[in-house]
Amino acid sequence: MPADLKKYIRSIRDFPIKGVLFRDITTLLKEPQALNETLNQLLHLTKGTVINKVVGIESRGFIFGAMVANELKAGFILARKPGKLPAETESQTYQLEYGLDKIEIHKDAISTGDKVLIHDDLLATGGTAEAACKLVEKLGGEVVQLSFLVELAFLNGREKMRRYDIKSLITYDSED
Amino acid sequence: MPADLKKYIRSIRDFPIKGVLFRDITTLLKEPQALNETLNQLLHLTKGTVINKVVGIESRGFIFGAMVANELKAGFILARKPGKLPAETESQTYQLEYGLDKIEIHKDAISTGDKVLIHDDLLATGGTAEAACKLVEKLGGEVVQLSFLVELAFLNGREKMRRYDIKSLITYDSED
Repeated sequence: MPADLKKYIRSIRDFPIKGVLFRDITTLLKEPQALNETLNQLLHLTKGTVINKVVGIESRGFIFGAMVANELKAGFILARKPGKLPAETESQTYQLEYGLDKIEIHKDAISTGDKVLIHDDLLATGGTAEAACKLVEKLGGEVVQLSFLVELAFLNGREKMRRYDIKSLITYDSED
Repeated sequence: MPADLKKYIRSIRDFPIKGVLFRDITTLLKEPQALNETLNQLLHLTKGTVINKVVGIESRGFIFGAMVANELKAGFILARKPGKLPAETESQTYQLEYGLDKIEIHKDAISTGDKVLIHDDLLATGGTAEAACKLVEKLGGEVVQLSFLVELAFLNGREKMRRYDIKSLITYDSED
């Protein structure tokens, strides 16, 4: 049975704003055994799935995204906030609670037929992840899996993305 | 002889501002062999050095920082821009060309006696890296190595940090 990673997550009240219980992964990252176990569990989720590109969502999605890409012998692709990527980009706007945000991927990062895993540390309302799926598809790639370290299931992020294979290692079913 | 990684770096004129030649690592990251070779070369630099924590500087420093930490069985620590880390932090201000910037580390991320590798993708003027060294030392850690994927040697970043072991994989001796 895989090790329980939830015990490594620290919960912090009222961050970044009052009323939010923040799930802090830095306490997991700093424990070598937990870091390695997390990587192994993420890799286990990909068993049997052909993947040749991994997209990591800025910035905590870069942490395990790159490690997973390396282990799968896949290319690693950055999904970044606007203005950070230097070459020609494709961009996708998405809805936040108040207002809009946007993410970008280099146009030459994904090719037609690429089998893509999208990775981020957290699945909350799913806006960013859904935007990343659209970006990959605009560029001709196929999203074969989305993986997350932590899922806040009570925010129903997966509802937005029913047609995808969505996996997460640690799930919180309620705010507390 | 190690593979030449420089050929995977793309140079982009006038990014982020006019007159700057930007060294883009995304073209290296997306090639699986180059991604793996970079990791191996970074690990090779650490041979013979005892390291139990790796600090990755936001955000591209997270990419190889986490991979190196995992391979060394070290803990991975995030150095982030202000307001991003949820628990109690130590912070360090540093000089930019115009104005000041700041980075932070969780106070509980480094303990007295920790042997720390600081990693970032780019050594330019060295302001951020020097600030990261000060943070580690404020918390009682010892900086045993700094490693970079790319060094812009003509900006003399290492001059600021003469007393440290500074290593980089790819060096540019002039702007062009």
